[in-house]
Amino acid sequence: MRILGVDPGMTRCGLGVVDTAAGRRVHLVEVGVVRTAAELSPHLRLLAVAEEIERWLTTLRPDVVAVERVFAQANVRSVTGTSQVAGVAMLAAARAHLPLALHTPSEVKAAVTGNGRAEKAQVQEMVMRILGLAERPRPADAADALALAICHAWRGGGAGSAVRAQYGGADTLPRATGAGLTPAQRAWAEAERSARRAGAVAPKL
Amino acid sequence: MRILGVDPGMTRCGLGVVDTAAGRRVHLVEVGVVRTAAELSPHLRLLAVAEEIERWLTTLRPDVVAVERVFAQANVRSVTGTSQVAGVAMLAAARAHLPLALHTPSEVKAAVTGNGRAEKAQVQEMVMRILGLAERPRPADAADALALAICHAWRGGGAGSAVRAQYGGADTLPRATGAGLTPAQRAWAEAERSARRAGAVAPKL
Repeated sequence: MRILGVDPGMTRCGLGVVDTAAGRRVHLVEVGVVRTAAELSPHLRLLAVAEEIERWLTTLRPDVVAVERVFAQANVRSVTGTSQVAGVAMLAAARAHLPLALHTPSEVKAAVTGNGRAEKAQVQEMVMRILGLAERPRPADAADALALAICHAWRGGGAGSAVRAQYGGADTLPRATGAGLTPAQRAWAEAERSARRAGAVAPKL
Repeated sequence: MRILGVDPGMTRCGLGVVDTAAGRRVHLVEVGVVRTAAELSPHLRLLAVAEEIERWLTTLRPDVVAVERVFAQANVRSVTGTSQVAGVAMLAAARAHLPLALHTPSEVKAAVTGNGRAEKAQVQEMVMRILGLAERPRPADAADALALAICHAWRGGGAGSAVRAQYGGADTLPRATGAGLTPAQRAWAEAERSARRAGAVAPKL
């Protein structure tokens, strides 16, 4: 399964693609950031982000798009801009007939570090280790998009509900290290199957 | 000038189109609401709204799109969903090579009632009178989209800055009644010219 993770943002929108492999292994496919200038009119900034996401969808052909679920922040202007970008990313997934997954920041942190309140640097460190990279992914915003894609690989469909159910609603998962058929892996396989059963969107050709 | 007003919302997205005429007159062209079911996946709801807005743009060919600027609300989930729809509407404007205007709820209320804190019913009443309708526009959400379009007709480009400057930064405008070449009308003409001068987006063919 190939997953595109989107960390929405008006100034910088992180994009990261990973492939899942046997066991809990994941491989880096592509990582990057869409930057738009603050001087541009907001609808033109959204257009630039949309076109870049569409280019990634066409070129890299992911099977699912995972977008970070936006929550309240101190800066309301930032929430609305971030949500607008998230909306544009979600629309791109729908237009490509791809299923959409939303994961909260704490779900992402819990999936890759085992701690839902992990520091940003710890998340970047784990993304580097999980993907077997020589150094932390740059820019930092892009690491968040990769973390989101890894989170989706391990937590499975929707907002991770299948996995959450298996773990009794706890917002933590086993650490990202280890191998073999873990409970998380079984849960992911189940989530993937149920996502396919749901079939609300057309299958990719 | 033909204006499409969009009152963004995930459950109901109001759409209203008006034409401007000589003096401060505005005419109703079309009004409606896009509804999407809460059971649908959010990206498919956004797709439904996007496709309907695109249908309106293609069919009615407005010269400008005015979207309500989303602000903080008690319900954060509602802010993010509303902003996602706003983002999709803004993207549709960019794709159609149309200029975008954002107006705040208080700017809209001030423009049509003279009071930035007017009640919803008063806004609907004034929309009915301004457009010369026999009754209040239904559904109520659609009246807000018409109010937004009327606001844009009278306040002019951007976030109404040209008009605000003329009125010394006050957030009120003369009442919506009256005829002849008012200061607001002159300000609007100036704002329209400056919006064309800015030329950040390609002109419509």
